[in-house]
Amino acid sequence: MVIREEKRKKIDKFDLRMIKLLSKNARLNYRQLAEYLNTTRQRVSRRLERLEREGIIKKYTVVPDLSRLGYIYVILGITLTPGTSIDEEIENIKNREDVKVIERAIGPHNLVIHLLVPKDMKEVEKRINEITGKLKNIEKVDVTFVTDIVKFELI
Amino acid sequence: MVIREEKRKKIDKFDLRMIKLLSKNARLNYRQLAEYLNTTRQRVSRRLERLEREGIIKKYTVVPDLSRLGYIYVILGITLTPGTSIDEEIENIKNREDVKVIERAIGPHNLVIHLLVPKDMKEVEKRINEITGKLKNIEKVDVTFVTDIVKFELI
Repeated sequence: MVIREEKRKKIDKFDLRMIKLLSKNARLNYRQLAEYLNTTRQRVSRRLERLEREGIIKKYTVVPDLSRLGYIYVILGITLTPGTSIDEEIENIKNREDVKVIERAIGPHNLVIHLLVPKDMKEVEKRINEITGKLKNIEKVDVTFVTDIVKFELI
Repeated sequence: MVIREEKRKKIDKFDLRMIKLLSKNARLNYRQLAEYLNTTRQRVSRRLERLEREGIIKKYTVVPDLSRLGYIYVILGITLTPGTSIDEEIENIKNREDVKVIERAIGPHNLVIHLLVPKDMKEVEKRINEITGKLKNIEKVDVTFVTDIVKFELI
């Protein structure tokens, strides 16, 4: 039984091909996926449900033209002072509606935050001050404004 | 006629609510969207097709657990020397399979690249050298390794 469980958790080429197809168009239905992968809808549905259940697929989402929707897209690259609990810092900001992406990281920044703000630079300043005010141990914040998403895939 | 075209291009609250629903689950079908939005499938399908056609919705994609798929996720924050043509630089790298995200930006970095590399630090070094070798006018590269995606939405 343990061995079967182990076997089930392995990701094979079929799973990867399916994930790559969905990364190009997450709205493909079972029938379309089955056609592309030359298999049955049953196999597609079984595998997809497993990938979702096990968290290999975290979510399906949409990539909008943020500028045309009236938003400014800002990346905050944050360096926390050594020894800071990143989990605690994340807790203070993660439920904000304007904080869209939170990534733990190592390198010049150990916290990367993507912020979506209505097109108004005063509002951007206010939001950045609110967020950095909530973080207790900041050493440095790099503010980068994304002006165009030229390419976007996640796998 | 011109006025009607103008009217059609406006994004209203209904569009925004639909895009936000899809950002939480891009696989919702017309029937489900219609239920959430308290409207008809016809209206959902008509509006969605317009948003896609006009590029307000750029694509639907999947957010996978990259680490469990065997990848290291690296952000390259690149500062180009002043006066460089960003378009030309992007042209040199945009077709690489491992370059997943390319963003034009203003701030400390004017080019942000997301790189997906199989889990092997030697391979990571090789890929970064290949990419920075293709860019002609680099002033500085900040390499950040994403260790966990805690939150991920795009709208």
